[in-house]
Amino acid sequence: MADQKALFEFLLRMGDNSLILGHRVSEWCGLSPVLEEDIALANTALDLIGQTQFWLGLAGEVEGKARSADDLAFLRDAWDFRNVLLVELPNGDFGQTLMRQFLYDAWSSIMLGRLMTSSDARVAEIAAKASKEVAYHVERSGDTVVGLGDGTEESHKRMQAALDYLWPYVGEMFDGDEVDAAMVAAGIAPDPAGLREEYDAFVGKVLNQATLTVPTDVFHHKGGRTGYMHTEHLGHLLTSMQWLQRAYPGATW
Amino acid sequence: MADQKALFEFLLRMGDNSLILGHRVSEWCGLSPVLEEDIALANTALDLIGQTQFWLGLAGEVEGKARSADDLAFLRDAWDFRNVLLVELPNGDFGQTLMRQFLYDAWSSIMLGRLMTSSDARVAEIAAKASKEVAYHVERSGDTVVGLGDGTEESHKRMQAALDYLWPYVGEMFDGDEVDAAMVAAGIAPDPAGLREEYDAFVGKVLNQATLTVPTDVFHHKGGRTGYMHTEHLGHLLTSMQWLQRAYPGATW
Repeated sequence: MADQKALFEFLLRMGDNSLILGHRVSEWCGLSPVLEEDIALANTALDLIGQTQFWLGLAGEVEGKARSADDLAFLRDAWDFRNVLLVELPNGDFGQTLMRQFLYDAWSSIMLGRLMTSSDARVAEIAAKASKEVAYHVERSGDTVVGLGDGTEESHKRMQAALDYLWPYVGEMFDGDEVDAAMVAAGIAPDPAGLREEYDAFVGKVLNQATLTVPTDVFHHKGGRTGYMHTEHLGHLLTSMQWLQRAYPGATW
Repeated sequence: MADQKALFEFLLRMGDNSLILGHRVSEWCGLSPVLEEDIALANTALDLIGQTQFWLGLAGEVEGKARSADDLAFLRDAWDFRNVLLVELPNGDFGQTLMRQFLYDAWSSIMLGRLMTSSDARVAEIAAKASKEVAYHVERSGDTVVGLGDGTEESHKRMQAALDYLWPYVGEMFDGDEVDAAMVAAGIAPDPAGLREEYDAFVGKVLNQATLTVPTDVFHHKGGRTGYMHTEHLGHLLTSMQWLQRAYPGATW
């Protein structure tokens, strides 16, 4: 049986990624450039928060301290979050939001594909559900990246700037540590580094089609998925996301 | 003896103005264009929060429900705040922040001057302390408004834009209602409308020196000081300002 503490950590990483990105994407609600995009972004946010419900629900179960998905989402402080830094960055403009979405979706779709054969049936089941949604997300975000990258001079410039800004946050998704080693040993999840080749091939193809240049600098920011350090943006996000439960503890619909 | 409920409301209005403006100004900490301005703004914020301590401390005393200044600052929700809308608006650029500061300081210095002769000795004492600080604030913000208004083409343009944006929020400081009538009757505070002539003369002189044009539109936004309605900005400000006490109830240094 797998180390339950490591499994809990792994599940937090999965759930916090979708929670924080879901919240960020929800910030666009009512503010998107056109109505169809507004609805599409809201739907993406809802999918991500739905996935969070599964991942953090299972995390709470594995932890065995009677914490619900809601407790984990709304009552932890910044240092207990395990999302990669990429998803907590501010939205920037529409192009930057979609570029981040694509860079994340591409990783997520590959990751979920591997998790569908997890030795843990609960993980495999969540992955199977989520991967259907993410297959659609990555198609949409990829198309938008191509449309805007290979669009007007202005949209191309903005998408290249977004890629240059976000690329140093991509590497963290492929970092591994003892938690990942425990997951690999138990057959629960793949070694993150093992997804990189497929990711680079796929992302490179789409970015190439978008006439964008992938930065060559190999440095990457990290600290989010291990909880070592988050950006200041996460703290600000939490004050807003957690406000209701913090101000009105135990409030329900 | 004055109606204690009206006096409580009046004190909330005074304290919430300085609290919310103090918090807004504190947001500049570490971000000002030059070091001296950074320190000056931080000092202004500290003064305002110090004044808040007095006003809300007295408000809690008058209310008689054992609420401290901290309780009133950190544990009320948006609908219970009584500040004018002017002070809750986002900072905008440095010029806009200083223009708001000047428009507020000018009102505050006149108001505090009147309150120094309040029939309520506690109010008169707070006013005497605060007016020394505010005399310095208004000199500084006024000088900055002149310096930037009568500065470069760019700074003039920005200061005029700031004035045009903020002017419709000035009128609320001179609105009166039954709370003010009760204060006037008890000799505690002046009729707000009675400050307008002195305000317009003083502010007009400074803005004229700054080569800026006072908007002629007489419409003004309101709702903040009566608690009828705040802008969405106040809610966002509170999530950040109240976070610590909300997340860690009862936390002390």
